[in-house]
Amino acid sequence: MAKQQIKLGLVGFGTVGVGVAKILQNQADLIAKRSGAEFTVVKAAMRDVNKKRDIALAPGAATTDWKEVVNDSEVELVVELMGGTDVAFEVVASALKLGKPVVTGNKALLAERGEEIFALSAQHNTPVYFEASVAGGIPIIKTLREAFVSNALVNLSGIINGTCNYILERMTDAGLSYQDALKEAMDLGYAEADPTLDINGWDAGHKAILLGAISYGFLPDPAKTYVTGIENVRLEDIELADKLGYAIKLISVVKPACDKTIEIRTQASFVPQTHLLAKVDGVFNAVALHGDEVGDSFIYGRGAGAGPTATAVIADLVDAANGSKGFLPYNATSYTVADIDETETAYFVSIEVKDEPGVMAQITSLFSNQGMSFSGTFSNVNPSEPDAAMNSVSFITHKAKLGTLKAALSDLASLDCVTNEPTYYRVESFE
Amino acid sequence: MAKQQIKLGLVGFGTVGVGVAKILQNQADLIAKRSGAEFTVVKAAMRDVNKKRDIALAPGAATTDWKEVVNDSEVELVVELMGGTDVAFEVVASALKLGKPVVTGNKALLAERGEEIFALSAQHNTPVYFEASVAGGIPIIKTLREAFVSNALVNLSGIINGTCNYILERMTDAGLSYQDALKEAMDLGYAEADPTLDINGWDAGHKAILLGAISYGFLPDPAKTYVTGIENVRLEDIELADKLGYAIKLISVVKPACDKTIEIRTQASFVPQTHLLAKVDGVFNAVALHGDEVGDSFIYGRGAGAGPTATAVIADLVDAANGSKGFLPYNATSYTVADIDETETAYFVSIEVKDEPGVMAQITSLFSNQGMSFSGTFSNVNPSEPDAAMNSVSFITHKAKLGTLKAALSDLASLDCVTNEPTYYRVESFE
Repeated sequence: MAKQQIKLGLVGFGTVGVGVAKILQNQADLIAKRSGAEFTVVKAAMRDVNKKRDIALAPGAATTDWKEVVNDSEVELVVELMGGTDVAFEVVASALKLGKPVVTGNKALLAERGEEIFALSAQHNTPVYFEASVAGGIPIIKTLREAFVSNALVNLSGIINGTCNYILERMTDAGLSYQDALKEAMDLGYAEADPTLDINGWDAGHKAILLGAISYGFLPDPAKTYVTGIENVRLEDIELADKLGYAIKLISVVKPACDKTIEIRTQASFVPQTHLLAKVDGVFNAVALHGDEVGDSFIYGRGAGAGPTATAVIADLVDAANGSKGFLPYNATSYTVADIDETETAYFVSIEVKDEPGVMAQITSLFSNQGMSFSGTFSNVNPSEPDAAMNSVSFITHKAKLGTLKAALSDLASLDCVTNEPTYYRVESFE
Repeated sequence: MAKQQIKLGLVGFGTVGVGVAKILQNQADLIAKRSGAEFTVVKAAMRDVNKKRDIALAPGAATTDWKEVVNDSEVELVVELMGGTDVAFEVVASALKLGKPVVTGNKALLAERGEEIFALSAQHNTPVYFEASVAGGIPIIKTLREAFVSNALVNLSGIINGTCNYILERMTDAGLSYQDALKEAMDLGYAEADPTLDINGWDAGHKAILLGAISYGFLPDPAKTYVTGIENVRLEDIELADKLGYAIKLISVVKPACDKTIEIRTQASFVPQTHLLAKVDGVFNAVALHGDEVGDSFIYGRGAGAGPTATAVIADLVDAANGSKGFLPYNATSYTVADIDETETAYFVSIEVKDEPGVMAQITSLFSNQGMSFSGTFSNVNPSEPDAAMNSVSFITHKAKLGTLKAALSDLASLDCVTNEPTYYRVESFE
């Protein structure tokens, strides 16, 4: 674009859209001095043009019809902040077809329909920018694409859903049950009215897909990525983790696997308490990166909210104004997602047992038969009752493929002494 | 520049220069796919062209004369990695005069002679890029300039000298004396043969000047910035800090003060052990940022070494190839550095005393007379000897100007019961 006076059209004028417009007004001088770029919002689509908002748009700028924004001949760049994957797709596609660059914060749209969108972007030689779609105030896309342009990504492990992080933290620090912590997050406005996509892991899962795309140049198929949430994390798991020196966090991992495949997965994992990721509190986000040349790095910030998200949107606006190239998949046909059963980590496994002779021998033999071994074990010991029954036992395994663990757990189910389905978590190691 | 095939000249071919050349060779495909840019090193100046290096340059590319690099008609972009402020200035100035953009990692050059260099950059409309000059693998300049382009900086507090951080950590964790920790750092190659600029704070001080320039648009006068090092940090200070819940770190602070002045200072400070900066170990660097819209953020990574520094250099090369604007001071005449005596923090003050009646009353009255008050106090208590002599007492003060603290400390010197010059540290609060 490389143009210094840009006329914007906004589609979506909620918290973030209003935030963008306000910062563009209040900080116009700073932005212009730093970047040379000046922005004017000439058209903005919103549900209710009469709703009172803390911002004055130009007369006639407000509309309820997104087409009026995209098709406005004055609008040179379209900012899509409406969310969803149907109308939002139409908005983005229409803008690209008109040769108008798009800035969006819509992770679901890009993760689910990225192939169509990037094809349009390439076809019309018109870029799409999406820093705001992953971890709001953390410039993770710019860091991966630009700062670490020369580095092969060895490991990315991120906390990229603030709602889950808040819930897990409250379970950890205040001993709340999952249900009570979720309710608190909703009461405080940290979780959506429908928190499904947060707690089932898919909000983070969508972001992981975009981080995979940026890092390896192809769009991971959502159906092939592994995503589970935090609904099944029990307070006793968190307490056990703590005893062993771990925190439980919803972690999204992106890393290379064999033969031009990448491992991409989101789940509640064990994280060593000594790692910086374990120290990420509340609704904050953080990403630990390991680049082959830069080594370990770590970025932390607010993942949501008007200020952080608008900051990311405006960074993209400036990049667009300066003619920065947008992302296009460069390994679209050569890379794919690794089979989750082939991915390796250590595991925490907790097994409820009947206290009878030979329990430990039977269990450990089964693991051993699958080629799995242990780096640690734990069960509650009562010093004043050494003869008390052992009702459960936990293990930290050495690294193994998930498929191998599943086979071992399936074998366990056949043992009489195992009284319940075992619980397991991955133990992350950031390598 | 916005040109996709760039011919480079390197001036300085030590660890970092060789690292740049190697990564450009090994990762040429990745860099080209991601950015569209391709680089060839056509000329490189080095002290000894016959020294065995783990890299093959084109025949005739090696020279001992930097002028051959800068003046080579093929060379389009000059990478200055020789260090120093005299010849390096000539190199950079000559390149700019020829309209050849410069990428440099030379913090001392830019901090000491930035006015001349940016004047040449403006005059010849030729940019200078310097990501590698501050905190190697941490993309702090890109983050401040681009990701947070719309944010006024509220506070920046960084650990930007790995040598000092290593020494302070070893004093803290292993109980080494300052001298032993310094020797260990030198033996391990973490400190230069002449570590003066590390331990006297000026390596960090130069970087702080550049961070001030990026954040506020003017070049802080080095003579007006406050810089002290770690030479006077005693093991007993670290132990006392630990007892009170703090770590001692060499912290560089950049933040706005009154009337278009900025506070800019580097010194050993008390940092709460709960803050992420306190958890930065070894030779790592980290910067905590507070932007007015993005809120708190934190970036951590390696501050030195071939891989991290070359990563930063290559990020600048790609930005140059894509025509990214370099930094130019935009508030050159309107901003200045605040008087250090006017800057406010809380303080830790430790005072050695004679144990006699009225000591506490005399000391606290003096502080009170200067308008200073305390948020905490500590002296060793021996439970089995409550009548033991009190030889020293420490205070955490409420916030006050440094000038006020100095006045109080000067008053203290007049007291008979104070047996030594008091020790003080700032207590950082990142606001």
